[in-house]
Amino acid sequence: MSQSIKDQFTAHLRVLQNEICQALEQADGKARFVCDVWERPDGGGGESRIINGGNVFEKGGVNVSVVHGKLPAIAAQQLKVDGDSFFACGLSLVLHPSNPFVPTVHANWRYFELYNEDGEVMDAWFGGGTDLTPYYLFDNDAIYFHSVQKNSCDAFDQSLYPTFKKQCDQYFSNHHRDGERRGVGGIFFDHCRGIAGRSLEFWKSFAETNGKNFLTAYLPIVEKRKNKTFTSKHKFWQEIRRGRYVEFNLLHDRGTLFGIKTNGRTESILMSLPPTVRFEYNFQPTPGSEEARLTEVLMNPKDWLTSNPVVL
Amino acid sequence: MSQSIKDQFTAHLRVLQNEICQALEQADGKARFVCDVWERPDGGGGESRIINGGNVFEKGGVNVSVVHGKLPAIAAQQLKVDGDSFFACGLSLVLHPSNPFVPTVHANWRYFELYNEDGEVMDAWFGGGTDLTPYYLFDNDAIYFHSVQKNSCDAFDQSLYPTFKKQCDQYFSNHHRDGERRGVGGIFFDHCRGIAGRSLEFWKSFAETNGKNFLTAYLPIVEKRKNKTFTSKHKFWQEIRRGRYVEFNLLHDRGTLFGIKTNGRTESILMSLPPTVRFEYNFQPTPGSEEARLTEVLMNPKDWLTSNPVVL
Repeated sequence: MSQSIKDQFTAHLRVLQNEICQALEQADGKARFVCDVWERPDGGGGESRIINGGNVFEKGGVNVSVVHGKLPAIAAQQLKVDGDSFFACGLSLVLHPSNPFVPTVHANWRYFELYNEDGEVMDAWFGGGTDLTPYYLFDNDAIYFHSVQKNSCDAFDQSLYPTFKKQCDQYFSNHHRDGERRGVGGIFFDHCRGIAGRSLEFWKSFAETNGKNFLTAYLPIVEKRKNKTFTSKHKFWQEIRRGRYVEFNLLHDRGTLFGIKTNGRTESILMSLPPTVRFEYNFQPTPGSEEARLTEVLMNPKDWLTSNPVVL
Repeated sequence: MSQSIKDQFTAHLRVLQNEICQALEQADGKARFVCDVWERPDGGGGESRIINGGNVFEKGGVNVSVVHGKLPAIAAQQLKVDGDSFFACGLSLVLHPSNPFVPTVHANWRYFELYNEDGEVMDAWFGGGTDLTPYYLFDNDAIYFHSVQKNSCDAFDQSLYPTFKKQCDQYFSNHHRDGERRGVGGIFFDHCRGIAGRSLEFWKSFAETNGKNFLTAYLPIVEKRKNKTFTSKHKFWQEIRRGRYVEFNLLHDRGTLFGIKTNGRTESILMSLPPTVRFEYNFQPTPGSEEARLTEVLMNPKDWLTSNPVVL
């Protein structure tokens, strides 16, 4: 008997969570993920895995949630859909390294089903992506990260990477700071339905492949930068930039606001916030500095893959 | 020739800004306010006064803004009003002391006018209030702060303090944390119009009086606690609680969200964010500790004035 898409994707997410956590623990060499299993009062639950105070990772989480039930009115409004009940599963991860030369990373892969009053599927879609937030810009890291995303997309359709790269730059934008981006992007896709010649299975496979490529995209960057010496000046700048991460997540991130408004599990949602953060009035990096070079790229996202991909 | 209400209140705010900044500099003994005068492209402007790295005040701002112009659609929507153009003036202040035994304070007094296409006043109201956010709870500080608020209100009508105290507890609530309050409250009033036997002049005088009482309510607490010895454990807890301050301001505060959505001056709006902040996954204070005692009161706001007011 063949499994449903939702059961297949849920099973994939649980395997992926294990695989990612194991590899991150190995890269860290000290901290271990702590597991919090939780239930949602209105149906379903999840497993949050949290890492803290590691050699590499100062704070992070790799969370799976599998929830279902009546569709809350506020959720229907935000998703701009109509329906009686829903199912949603997803894996969300954020990693905040302590070394300012190692970038923060975020990834999410999710599947959503909407049902009518008879329990029939009315609508279903995949979403997800991954993006990189460096505090100091090594062009090769950004090029490498994007080249893995491009490969992951190209296996399905060469038109996908350019579209999803652009969507990522559009999405992770602090609109209240003249559109300064959160980081150097990656890919972002949403509402990927079984239409226009592409089946839901196509998007399931696409999301799974992107998930399986996560470690390939991120770990070599971690390995390359994790032992680089840094000073309190670098840490200061990292904490200023982490402030912008907080601003984006609490002011603009649809996933965070959706979770908060629909009574999601607060601690699992806000695990994305960085461990230590600094807010300074009107902080401006010194013109010509490395800090200013990063800001410049965040204001004007680059196409990282105009030249040949690099090997890290 | 008699001045209009808006001119009178604007003049009051400018005098109050001077008075408050001078007294705070004196209490601090080291840092001086730095002044940023700014213009709003669509009309009006403001003066932000920022303090940083003081003996007492780690970060803070005392800002006046006086703006006018066409009413942005998003503003009309959020305020639930209709109109062609508007005038708004206000003073907003937030002070983040470095010593965890000195509470953070916030205050705001504002006046709003709405005009039709012929420039006639369609609607006008006052709003404001002040609230205290301690990191360690000294009951006498909370009682004293509230007694000054009550005196400030009682001079106008004895029904006002109980109403505005309750509104304050309701407003400064982190709904996503089961209604945990930001602090021990104070008073909060809004949409105070010239109706029901009370004139606009009544509310102007009420808002002015509350503003003039700010230093009386806050400075004795600062003086009493500013030299108390603290350890890194106290600082850690202060930074955790500051995280909740950030969560409230970016997720729930109507003033902040209004400013961000209507293209306000970002640096002046976000001056309210604390200087250094910590986010820990699922941090829980030790049962029976001072930290737990604060949390208990934040979950269940107290009526501080059932007993006699204290003299600090």
